[in-house]
Amino acid sequence: MRNPIITLLTDFGTKDPYVASMKGVILRINPKCTLVDITHQVSPHNIKEGAFLLANVYCFFPKGTIHLSVVDPEVGGLRKPILIVTKDYFFVGPDNGLFSLALRKEKVRKVIVLTNPQYFLPNVSATFHGRDIFAPVAGHLSLGLRPGAFGNKLDKWVELDFEKPKIEGEKLVGEILHVESFGNLISNIDEKEFSHFTRGHPFLIRIGEKTIRSFKKGYWKGKKNEPIALFGSGGFLEISVREGNAQKMLKAKRGDRVIVEIR
Amino acid sequence: MRNPIITLLTDFGTKDPYVASMKGVILRINPKCTLVDITHQVSPHNIKEGAFLLANVYCFFPKGTIHLSVVDPEVGGLRKPILIVTKDYFFVGPDNGLFSLALRKEKVRKVIVLTNPQYFLPNVSATFHGRDIFAPVAGHLSLGLRPGAFGNKLDKWVELDFEKPKIEGEKLVGEILHVESFGNLISNIDEKEFSHFTRGHPFLIRIGEKTIRSFKKGYWKGKKNEPIALFGSGGFLEISVREGNAQKMLKAKRGDRVIVEIR
Amino acid sequence: MRNPIITLLTDFGTKDPYVASMKGVILRINPKCTLVDITHQVSPHNIKEGAFLLANVYCFFPKGTIHLSVVDPEVGGLRKPILIVTKDYFFVGPDNGLFSLALRKEKVRKVIVLTNPQYFLPNVSATFHGRDIFAPVAGHLSLGLRPGAFGNKLDKWVELDFEKPKIEGEKLVGEILHVESFGNLISNIDEKEFSHFTRGHPFLIRIGEKTIRSFKKGYWKGKKNEPIALFGSGGFLEISVREGNAQKMLKAKRGDRVIVEIR
Repeated sequence: MRNPIITLLTDFGTKDPYVASMKGVILRINPKCTLVDITHQVSPHNIKEGAFLLANVYCFFPKGTIHLSVVDPEVGGLRKPILIVTKDYFFVGPDNGLFSLALRKEKVRKVIVLTNPQYFLPNVSATFHGRDIFAPVAGHLSLGLRPGAFGNKLDKWVELDFEKPKIEGEKLVGEILHVESFGNLISNIDEKEFSHFTRGHPFLIRIGEKTIRSFKKGYWKGKKNEPIALFGSGGFLEISVREGNAQKMLKAKRGDRVIVEIR
Repeated sequence: MRNPIITLLTDFGTKDPYVASMKGVILRINPKCTLVDITHQVSPHNIKEGAFLLANVYCFFPKGTIHLSVVDPEVGGLRKPILIVTKDYFFVGPDNGLFSLALRKEKVRKVIVLTNPQYFLPNVSATFHGRDIFAPVAGHLSLGLRPGAFGNKLDKWVELDFEKPKIEGEKLVGEILHVESFGNLISNIDEKEFSHFTRGHPFLIRIGEKTIRSFKKGYWKGKKNEPIALFGSGGFLEISVREGNAQKMLKAKRGDRVIVEIR
Repeated sequence: MRNPIITLLTDFGTKDPYVASMKGVILRINPKCTLVDITHQVSPHNIKEGAFLLANVYCFFPKGTIHLSVVDPEVGGLRKPILIVTKDYFFVGPDNGLFSLALRKEKVRKVIVLTNPQYFLPNVSATFHGRDIFAPVAGHLSLGLRPGAFGNKLDKWVELDFEKPKIEGEKLVGEILHVESFGNLISNIDEKEFSHFTRGHPFLIRIGEKTIRSFKKGYWKGKKNEPIALFGSGGFLEISVREGNAQKMLKAKRGDRVIVEIR
C-alpha cells in the first residue's frame, strides 16, 4: 500500500497508555503508517455508541484505509477477532456488531476470522487483544499482506439491532441516537424517511414535554435559547440550540423518543 | 510544498468524530500531510478563547504551516470562509476574529474569501464547514495550489477587541485572559507594559481580595500554598502556586481584574 | 535515523497548546518525525504516575524511539535536564525519577546532562523546558546527532522508590499502583511474586473490607457485579468487574493495600 492509513476508535480513554501501546505495535511493524485517532472516548463497553460514531466518519477517509476499532467487553472470550474487507475499506476488530452500522453502507467482499498467530504478538494476553491481535494484524495488513493470510473466511457476522423510526398512527416515532459534544440531540430519523412522512405538510416535533416548532437550515438561524430542528451533517434530524446546549435545555438523553407530527 | 503540515484547532471536543472526518477529508486530498492537533477543547463557541490559544502556539511551527482553525458559531450564516496568507503561515477558517490575535504579530500578505466550490466537498452542509469547506481547502493548499485559486481578495476582515491593560491613577489594571490546565492565571499584562509601569519600583499585585507580594523567576521558587507572580512562557504576567492550583486557591476566573500597584 | 519516532508523555492536559508548541518546535527541526502521544493526562506534578504509565508502554515502540516525557514540577530549578541512552531507546526529560521505573527493565548505556545551548531554543524560559530544551533536543537527536553533542556524561541519576509487595506473616501485602480508565485496580504484585507466594494453594484477596474469591483468566469470565482478580495486560494482579467499575464498586483508591492470603 502507498501511504497506508490506520484509524483508531476505542473506549480506552486518553489517560492510560493503551492506545499508545497499540500505536507502538503498529509502528514496529510498519513505521510508515499514518495513524489517525477517531475517538477513544466511546463510553466504556458501549458497542452501539462505537458503531454509531464509526459509521459517521469512516467514509471520509481515503480508499484503502484500515479502520481499527476496539470496543470489546468480551475480550478473550468467545467473540471472534475479525477482518472485514469491503469494496473501499478494511475493518479490524471484534465481531460483536461494532462494524455493523458502517457495513450497511458498504459492499462487503469478505470477512476473515483472525486465527493465524504468526501475525499476533508472541504472547497474547486474555485482556488486551487491541494490542496483541488487532494492532499487529492492522500493521501487517498495511504492509500489503493479503487478507487470506490472517485466517479463514467467515460466512456470518454479528449485526446489532439499531431501532428504526416507526409510524404509529399519525406520528413518526424515532429516538435520540446520540448526544454530541455541543449538546445537539441526534435522532435516528433520516432526511428521506422524514420527507416521506411529512410530504411538505407543516409539522412539529416533540421530545418529552417539549414541542419544537422551528425547523431551520442551519444552527445560526435559530434564536438564542430556542430549540430548533434541522438536518445535521450526518443527515439525521437533530435538535439544537443556537450557541447553547439542547441536551441541557431539554433535559433529554440517549434513547428518548423523538416524535414528528403533522400539524 | 515539501513536508506539508496542517494544524487543527477547534471547539469540537474529542469524543465526536468531527475532527477525524476533517482529517479524513484532508488525507483524501493529500495523504502526505502531517496533521497536528493544537486543541479541540476550546470552550464551545468561544472565539476569543480560540484566538488566545492559537496566538500562543502558531509561531512555533515551521514556516509554511497551514493553521486550520474552526470555532464557528455562525457556520452556514453570513460570516465569510477565509484563507489568510502571511509572510510565514497560512490560516484557514471563519472570518469571525478567530485569527485576529495571531495576526497582530504577523505580516498579512493577502486574505481570500473562499468561494470556489471546486475545492469544497461536493455537498456543502449548512452545519459543518470544517469538514465541507475548510478541510478540503487546507488539503488543496497543502498540495501547493496558489491562494488566488480559492476565491477573490478581501480588503477587510473581522478583528476582535481584546482588552488592553490600562493605567488608572496609580494602578496598572489588566484582566485574567486564560486559566490554564495547571490552574495558572494568565493575565493580559505583558513584560514590556509591566516594566514600563513599575520602572524597577517594588510592587504588589491584587486579584479580588488577595494580595500577591512574591514575584519569582520560576514556579519552583514559590513556597507551597503561596501564590506567586511570574512571567509565563507566553510572556504574560501570570499567577501561580507551586505544585498547586492558583485558580482554586484564589477562586479567580477569566475576566477578573489583575491590579499592579507600586508599594 | 530512518523513520524517527518521538513519543510525548506530559501532565500538560489537552486543552492548552503546550503540547502543540513542543510538536511545532520538533517539526521545525525535523519535519519527518512521526509524533505519537502517549498521554498528556498524567495528574499534575505526579512524577510517580508518569513513571508508571511510561514504564507500561515505552517498550512497545520500535527500537530507536525517542521518549520525550515531561512531568516537571521543578522546571527551571535545580533538577537536571537529561538524555538517557539505553540499548534500545532514548529518553529525554527532567532528572526527577520519571524514567526510573522504565529503566529497571532497560540496559542503560549512558546518561547525558543537557547543557549545550546550541540545541535549545534561543530564549529558554524558566517555566517551559518542555518547549525550550527537551523538544529541540529530541528534534536534533532524531536527526541523528550523537548523544555526546548535548552535554557531558552523568554518573548518578534520580531513582524513585516504588513500594514492593512484602510478606507479612502469612500474607502478601501489596498496594494499588494505578486506577485505570475502566476502573480496574492495578496492584504492584506481579505474576512471579504471586506464584512464589501462593505455590498453587487456594487463596483469597482483600481490599479494605472486601474479599475477592474469584480468580479468572479474563474480564469476560466474571459475573456482572462481581469483583474478580486476574493478571492484566501489564503483568500485574488486577481487580476488575465485568462491564463494570471496580474502583467505584470497591470504593478503592491508589495506595490502598491489596492483601493476598492462603485460604
